[in-house]
Amino acid sequence: MDVYFPHRYVAQADLEEADGIPKGKYEIGLGQERMSFVGDREDVNSIMMTAVSSLLTKFGIAPEQIGRLEVGTETLIDKSKSAKTHLMDLLGGNTNVEGCTSLNACYGGTAALLNSVAWVESSAWDGRYALVVCGDIAVYEKGPARPTGGCGAVAMLIGPDSPLPISAKRYTHAEHAYDFYKPNLESEYAMVDGHLSNMIYLRSLDVTYNGLLEVMGERSSACFDFLLFHSPYNKLVSKAVGRCLYNDFVRSEDEVDKDLAEALAPWKPDLVPPSSTYADRGLDKALKQASAASYKEKCAPGAYLSKQIGNSYTGALYVNLAALLHTQRGGLEGKSAFCFSYGSGAVATTFSIAARAPTASGSAFTCEAIADALDLNARLSQRQAATPEEFATALTLRETTHSLAPYTPSDPLELVSPGAYYIEGIDERHHRTYRQRPH
Amino acid sequence: MDVYFPHRYVAQADLEEADGIPKGKYEIGLGQERMSFVGDREDVNSIMMTAVSSLLTKFGIAPEQIGRLEVGTETLIDKSKSAKTHLMDLLGGNTNVEGCTSLNACYGGTAALLNSVAWVESSAWDGRYALVVCGDIAVYEKGPARPTGGCGAVAMLIGPDSPLPISAKRYTHAEHAYDFYKPNLESEYAMVDGHLSNMIYLRSLDVTYNGLLEVMGERSSACFDFLLFHSPYNKLVSKAVGRCLYNDFVRSEDEVDKDLAEALAPWKPDLVPPSSTYADRGLDKALKQASAASYKEKCAPGAYLSKQIGNSYTGALYVNLAALLHTQRGGLEGKSAFCFSYGSGAVATTFSIAARAPTASGSAFTCEAIADALDLNARLSQRQAATPEEFATALTLRETTHSLAPYTPSDPLELVSPGAYYIEGIDERHHRTYRQRPH
Repeated sequence: MDVYFPHRYVAQADLEEADGIPKGKYEIGLGQERMSFVGDREDVNSIMMTAVSSLLTKFGIAPEQIGRLEVGTETLIDKSKSAKTHLMDLLGGNTNVEGCTSLNACYGGTAALLNSVAWVESSAWDGRYALVVCGDIAVYEKGPARPTGGCGAVAMLIGPDSPLPISAKRYTHAEHAYDFYKPNLESEYAMVDGHLSNMIYLRSLDVTYNGLLEVMGERSSACFDFLLFHSPYNKLVSKAVGRCLYNDFVRSEDEVDKDLAEALAPWKPDLVPPSSTYADRGLDKALKQASAASYKEKCAPGAYLSKQIGNSYTGALYVNLAALLHTQRGGLEGKSAFCFSYGSGAVATTFSIAARAPTASGSAFTCEAIADALDLNARLSQRQAATPEEFATALTLRETTHSLAPYTPSDPLELVSPGAYYIEGIDERHHRTYRQRPH
Repeated sequence: MDVYFPHRYVAQADLEEADGIPKGKYEIGLGQERMSFVGDREDVNSIMMTAVSSLLTKFGIAPEQIGRLEVGTETLIDKSKSAKTHLMDLLGGNTNVEGCTSLNACYGGTAALLNSVAWVESSAWDGRYALVVCGDIAVYEKGPARPTGGCGAVAMLIGPDSPLPISAKRYTHAEHAYDFYKPNLESEYAMVDGHLSNMIYLRSLDVTYNGLLEVMGERSSACFDFLLFHSPYNKLVSKAVGRCLYNDFVRSEDEVDKDLAEALAPWKPDLVPPSSTYADRGLDKALKQASAASYKEKCAPGAYLSKQIGNSYTGALYVNLAALLHTQRGGLEGKSAFCFSYGSGAVATTFSIAARAPTASGSAFTCEAIADALDLNARLSQRQAATPEEFATALTLRETTHSLAPYTPSDPLELVSPGAYYIEGIDERHHRTYRQRPH
């Protein structure tokens, strides 16, 4: 796998100051440190081109080795044409490539991934790799949701003998809800009912976490070495860790340690129905304390990159997987990670990954090698800090120009990472032309 | 499987008269007879609800038998929320249901279908059915493309022991093209380069038809009893039949019959490069004549429903499969059908279906039973004819209101089929409420 994040970021602490709000509201309140953003030189196609190009180059994958290319995104600049068709330009003359876009809010990346894994297991598999690309440009209008934006794209190669096999056992929860949706088609901004969305995120976690443990025949989160969650912002992720422990407690007090059982005693399910606890501040507080050690041990190792780039929607869970590879490197082999993917609307799936050494000797795809290729620290340190004013200017530029045709982007190329693809121009027929910035 | 088409249609002959164009321009020039359309009471969610509800009822499928529900469409009324989440309301308390929307022009239905087939074959399959729903509301602005619209939705149940198994052998062609796309996000209308789109449709057919024969180890279209194509309008479909014969000729003159070889002699590949023939009127004319018998025998039996309802985009190929079931009934068992799915942008896949009797005795899913359930003649005869003026009024109503919120539809319920779902209202937060018209 490889991850792409844009060249520029804004620090949440700087945003707090610029927005004239109490210090810590974004850094501690949301749990986010920095937020990636793009101006008018990049769109969903270009960030995916950058991720794919980088992955193929780093691992020496030839275009003809790809038999499927699937995209997950909710950053639509066309209601019909898939970003996959733009990515075909990177595969040379190899056109025998299945797949298109999977769409349902932040769930599209997981849908694409699970589809590709099933393809490799199916009778139709032709021996080649599947390539799954997911990512988004998450932007919000001025107001309290704006600091929960972000941008990133993840490219993942799917095939046999994987160092990160996806469990066949998984569990899904889907329901109809208007928690986060995009009916204003001309706008990049979503309509969001934040309280409802957090509630359905946690309800989906309840159902799919308990469901996965049941189909696995396991009894508590103790069976997982790491916990990875879809990450709109880190504060919700730390809540999710607590929620898993709470679910363990609800299923059986005997499965959790004595201190936790004692702390949660006032919320025994026969006293307080679990479905009434999604906004229970007392429980929140108790869980925050009770889950702090679990968060630090099992979740933080996969959380640091999302805190640095913000929400990448369909890419978010896989950004966290990349962070886990980065912090654990070869040490990840033999360890398991619980994965919770959530897309508003809503669809959520849990599965697990049991990291291992590939059986083929000399495989290029060891956890160590992937961590090396990700090279996250170096790449994060090469980013460019922007002021809150530069950030606001970039978002206003997107707001006023993102669907114009013809349009020539005005941002200088220096705002695009070396090696990244960018929009050269958009003609009067909305045809977009892309180029790659030299490394 | 089941198919839904709207209550109203307009006759192409009436449109010709109203548009003041030469008689036969639509009926013969496009090869279309009638066109389905909806006013402001139906949207992509409601037509899919109608198809799903009808399928589950007709075959007595309980909600808990569904483990996956996948949608293919390019009629997006939300850039984030999948129509699948609306369909969850039809599955009662069963929320453990994978899947979301597959998107790439008219290819989304095929992507959803192939994903679901792979899921049933995968280690993650839990023994339940997958439900694939595809369909669109195809509308064009006033002008020459308008009579190529249409509307329909198809729901298909996927599982083992199928009477219509999808071949593991298939072939795909994907390339980046701006032939038909929807960058004007607020509009229901596409941007279309008709000549380019026909050319890429035929080029994709060349690659995937030849590719499929090669992976099957077959040498000509003689190996298929029936030919089913994506059907924007019937004239292109009849061209596609000719193109298959031309490809047989290009590969080997000895594989086609003597008359055909003689008729195509001026277009031997060493005289005229095949890639230069997409707009060759002489070849078109020769192929039309030479393929007339093949069209009548192998393609017409699956073409009649699309001629009656128009283009249903992602549903079109499967509307043709339904028509084939309707005309062949139990006689389809033991016969094979070539299938060509095309979505602009572009992605195309060929595969074959070898119809058979289910091995389970007493299976509800025989070709005969599906044909009975489709009941196409009766349902087509219950439709209501609209005048060209009523059709134009309905499309103007959609044009001016389709994304408004709040909005209360103005069409009377009599314009919706009995048993169909319809929009009751849309509130100021764009929340859509649906109801089912009594049977």
